Amino acid sequence: MTITRNRASLTMIKDEPFNAEAPHSGLAGHTTPTELHYVRSNFALPDHGGTLTVGGAVDRPLTLTVDDLRSLPAVTQAVTLECAGNGRLDMRPLPTGEPWGGYAVSTAVWTGARLADVLSQAGPRADGVELRCQGADHGKYHLASVLEPADADLSFVRSLALPHASDPAADILIAYEMNGEPLQPDHGAPFRLVVPHWYAVASVKWLERLDVITEPFTGEFQTGHYVYQWPDRPSEPVTLMRIRARITDPQPGAFIPAGTHMIHGKAWSGAGPITEVGLSFTGESEWAPATVEPPRGPYQWQDWSFRWEATPGRHSIRARARDAAGNVQPEVPPWNRLGYGNNAVELSYVEVR
Amino acid sequence: MTITRNRASLTMIKDEPFNAEAPHSGLAGHTTPTELHYVRSNFALPDHGGTLTVGGAVDRPLTLTVDDLRSLPAVTQAVTLECAGNGRLDMRPLPTGEPWGGYAVSTAVWTGARLADVLSQAGPRADGVELRCQGADHGKYHLASVLEPADADLSFVRSLALPHASDPAADILIAYEMNGEPLQPDHGAPFRLVVPHWYAVASVKWLERLDVITEPFTGEFQTGHYVYQWPDRPSEPVTLMRIRARITDPQPGAFIPAGTHMIHGKAWSGAGPITEVGLSFTGESEWAPATVEPPRGPYQWQDWSFRWEATPGRHSIRARARDAAGNVQPEVPPWNRLGYGNNAVELSYVEVR
Repeated sequence: MTITRNRASLTMIKDEPFNAEAPHSGLAGHTTPTELHYVRSNFALPDHGGTLTVGGAVDRPLTLTVDDLRSLPAVTQAVTLECAGNGRLDMRPLPTGEPWGGYAVSTAVWTGARLADVLSQAGPRADGVELRCQGADHGKYHLASVLEPADADLSFVRSLALPHASDPAADILIAYEMNGEPLQPDHGAPFRLVVPHWYAVASVKWLERLDVITEPFTGEFQTGHYVYQWPDRPSEPVTLMRIRARITDPQPGAFIPAGTHMIHGKAWSGAGPITEVGLSFTGESEWAPATVEPPRGPYQWQDWSFRWEATPGRHSIRARARDAAGNVQPEVPPWNRLGYGNNAVELSYVEVR
Repeated sequence: MTITRNRASLTMIKDEPFNAEAPHSGLAGHTTPTELHYVRSNFALPDHGGTLTVGGAVDRPLTLTVDDLRSLPAVTQAVTLECAGNGRLDMRPLPTGEPWGGYAVSTAVWTGARLADVLSQAGPRADGVELRCQGADHGKYHLASVLEPADADLSFVRSLALPHASDPAADILIAYEMNGEPLQPDHGAPFRLVVPHWYAVASVKWLERLDVITEPFTGEFQTGHYVYQWPDRPSEPVTLMRIRARITDPQPGAFIPAGTHMIHGKAWSGAGPITEVGLSFTGESEWAPATVEPPRGPYQWQDWSFRWEATPGRHSIRARARDAAGNVQPEVPPWNRLGYGNNAVELSYVEVR
């Protein structure tokens, strides 16, 4: 498999396996161009045999090619994907793991077959509880394994609750196109899961096997990593994206002229639409309401803006979102041992001259 | 009084009253050129009458000019001054107050008369307990006063314990030269206190009056602001600079080529010389020892360096200092309501290509 194009547009976090953030401009538009979309890999780019095997506790085991998937009803939808470790670099003490800043989040337009349609073809048996989803990527894990020996040959495997995986309304895709083109290798070619509203660990790339299983799945990427290990309460699995706002204009530390400046940003939540974004400047404890654009689709970030009269000096700018479920971002990053789900209010600053 | 030159070399935090950080290059040398030295002002640049009055509980009240001060034995010493609010921008939740990043620290060579010599001329009475030190700067305070009505005309006043102020070995100066030249207006012309080892709030600029007092002093800048208001224990006054290391090369977020890179930095503590600096990179929990240069003087930051083999990708870099008194920097900023004394381990990062 040839190395994917366009790696040079990204901010590289690690060269092998390749991990890279979007550049600041990747957050500017309603969607992110493919060459600006962040990349998260746990292992080297795999060889993929070109087929998807569906088995386990099913009545009709299947082997599907990309053409088979294309013959199913196609769904095209914009989905915001965010790495569970996004923002880890702002946690104190610094947890282990990739030093993601705040740009391991992007929004692409994905096209694929509904996972529910594929499962319906296979016919899960009544005793199935979860769907085990395996990628073709494997090898020695580059981080310290929680469950496995350090030199084990691990595969990237996750599971979804079977009712979730089987629900057409969940809009989980086996995607074969990204932004109108066949998937790039870095994004999971020839096909991958895209699980809306969930941290992107659920969206297994280079998808190779689906197995209906009759016991809850345990594995390094399900019950070892991607678990909130809280200092003071029981651990919890990483699931939905936590509510978060980002300031996209001005860039952090930018120099801007004094006068009227439109502040722009994005906000998203796995729990539902964003209903409010508030801004707070140096020395303020109040939050002034930004204008929040209505959702352009159920699974993608929303735009917000705020008209600001900028006076000379350094100004801190904080943006805080609230969603329809009533979730509000915290002021302090929610520290956990492996550094997931940092959705604290962003504290940006700007130099006005 | 003319506006001081060289403001343009600094990173402005606030235009009026003028507050500005050193640029990154201000931390590179053993000392900081005057035009790169940070500036902290609580009020507009004052008119100063040119004399220093020494009174209160003394046997021989004095009025001194800069020539009188120059006629006393001159002391020249390098002193690292740091604003108590330095690093406030890294605290969460963000406290009120100036949004200082990490560059409200500088080291200059100060020349002046010993405060102890001046006090000895005046002859403090036996019932004196503190020395009240008043600057010529005054006005309506630009932050929310803790003790005073919002529209009060405040003067900048601090006190020192009389035994400290009177101790020749404390090397407290009434400085009239900075880096070999008469003081600039922004740095307290015609003369100011320079109190080694203390956060710079003690180093009263535009010094106008010294009064020996017989009761402990209270005031906005002594017992209102410049107090650690801890969330979970009694408040404490801001006194000595807390131990801290800064990474000066590479700059935060810099791009550097893969290969051998010498990491450089500074470290200082108000409690004594730096004895160790440890470095820790992405995913490491251990601290590898840096080479720490011996102190060049008792009151100035020390240089340290570390030979690093840089591999491609983003790397977090942390530097942690220990001083001769056994103080070690904490991992998490020590949060307090007004945001003072953030001496947490710096978490910098670099992009290696």
